[in-house]
Amino acid sequence: MNETLQVMQNHRSIRSYQDKAIPEELIQSVLTSVQHMPTSINGQQVSVIVVQDKAKKKAISEIAGGQPWIAQAPVFLVFVADFYKTNIGAQIEGNTQVIHESIEGTVVGVFDAGIAMGAAIVAAESLGLGIVPIGGIRANPKEMIKLLNLPLYTFPVAGLVMGFPADTSHLKPRLPLVTFVHRETYQTEHLTEQIKAYDETMKAYYAERGDDKQTTWSKQVSGTYKYVYFPKVYPSMKSQGFDNDK
Amino acid sequence: MNETLQVMQNHRSIRSYQDKAIPEELIQSVLTSVQHMPTSINGQQVSVIVVQDKAKKKAISEIAGGQPWIAQAPVFLVFVADFYKTNIGAQIEGNTQVIHESIEGTVVGVFDAGIAMGAAIVAAESLGLGIVPIGGIRANPKEMIKLLNLPLYTFPVAGLVMGFPADTSHLKPRLPLVTFVHRETYQTEHLTEQIKAYDETMKAYYAERGDDKQTTWSKQVSGTYKYVYFPKVYPSMKSQGFDNDK
Repeated sequence: MNETLQVMQNHRSIRSYQDKAIPEELIQSVLTSVQHMPTSINGQQVSVIVVQDKAKKKAISEIAGGQPWIAQAPVFLVFVADFYKTNIGAQIEGNTQVIHESIEGTVVGVFDAGIAMGAAIVAAESLGLGIVPIGGIRANPKEMIKLLNLPLYTFPVAGLVMGFPADTSHLKPRLPLVTFVHRETYQTEHLTEQIKAYDETMKAYYAERGDDKQTTWSKQVSGTYKYVYFPKVYPSMKSQGFDNDK
Repeated sequence: MNETLQVMQNHRSIRSYQDKAIPEELIQSVLTSVQHMPTSINGQQVSVIVVQDKAKKKAISEIAGGQPWIAQAPVFLVFVADFYKTNIGAQIEGNTQVIHESIEGTVVGVFDAGIAMGAAIVAAESLGLGIVPIGGIRANPKEMIKLLNLPLYTFPVAGLVMGFPADTSHLKPRLPLVTFVHRETYQTEHLTEQIKAYDETMKAYYAERGDDKQTTWSKQVSGTYKYVYFPKVYPSMKSQGFDNDK
C-alpha cells in the first residue's frame, strides 16, 4: 500500500485541536491541490471560502448547531456550489444561464463540491493535519450566506474544520465492504443481515470507547432520517437562484 | 510537496487506455480506501458499482452519449447516492425514512458520492492508473438504473473510467486560484477580468494542442449551461423516490 492509500485508510474525524495556526503555505498547498481536481465540463463550479477570523468561526460554530471544534481549530473551509462564476462567463458571451434552474445544476455543483472536499480531506491528512466535515452549516443556510457574503447562484454545501490534532481519535468501522462495492449490478440479497452484523460491530465499538450508548448504526441513522432535519435547505437554495425544477 | 499532493497536482483526464486488465487487488485497494472516507452522520449513503463486463460497458458508453473510453478501459465505476441501505436500517428499527423526500437528502447523497469519487480519483492516480469522470450517465438515468438493477432510493450520480493510460494527456489550466479560494467572504470584485484572462489562457492551451477550436472557457461553459442538457434527471430521481421537496 502506498503513502496515499495509507493516508486514506487512516482517516478519522478529529474533535480536538491544538491552539496553533496552520502555516499559510500549507493552506495554499492543500487548496492548490484541490483546485486540480476535475469538474463537470470543466465548469469549475466550486469555490472554497477560507475562514480564519475567530469571531466568524465562533458564529459558524453556533449556526452549525453548537460544534465547538469549528471555533477551536484555526481554519474552517466552506465548500460552495458556485454558478456565479459560470454566469459571468455567460454574461461575457451574451448567453443566458439556465442550468441553475434544474436539479441537474444542483447535482453538478454539489457533486463537484464533494470531489473537492474529498481531495481536501486526503491532502490535509497527508500533511498531518486533522479534519472534521461539517454538514451543520445547512441548518441555517441564510445566515451562512449572509456571513460569507455569497452571491446569487452559489450555495454553501458543507464545511471542513482543519487544524493540528490534539488527540488521535478512533478509526470508525465501516459497513461490510460488500455492501459498499457491488459487482456488475446492485446486490440487495444479503444487505439486511450485513447491516445487522454492522449494528453489532458498532455497539461493540461504542462500548469499547466507554460511551454508554446502547445504540447501533440502524438506530442512529434511522433516528435522524425519520426527519428532514435541515428543512431550510430547499427555500434557501431557491432564494439563491437554485430552482430545482420548480 | 509530498507524494499525495504531487499526485493531485498532476491530475489529468485520460481518454485512451491500454488493453490490459486492472489486477483485482488494485481495484480492491482503491475501493477499500474510498470506503474510509467520511459520510454525513456516518450514514454511508454511497455505493459503488464496479462494471467490467464488456457488453455492459459498451451499453453505458452509448447511454452516456457515445464516450468510447468507457468501453475501451477495463473498469467503469458508478457512484450511487444510496438511501436504500439506510432504509433497511429504518426497517430494522421500525422507523419511517423521510430524508429522501427532501432536497437535503439529495444534497447529502450526491455530496458524499462526490467525496467518494474525489478519493477514488486520487487513489487510482496514486497507483499509476488513469481516470476520466463521466457525468453523461445522467443523460439517460432510467437506462442506467435498469442496467445496474438499482433499487428505490438510489440514484447513479456519476461514473469513473479507470485503466492503464495509453497516453499522457495534458494538464488543463484552471481559473486563477484567487477565483477558487476566497478569504473570509466571497470576493466578486475582480472576477470578470480574471475570467477574461483565463479565457485567453484556454484559447492558447487549445491552440498549442493543435485543436482548431476558437473557443474559450466562457464560450464553452455558457454554451452548455444555456440548456438543461440532462432534463431526465429530475423525473428519474422522482421515480427513484427522491422527491426534492415536491
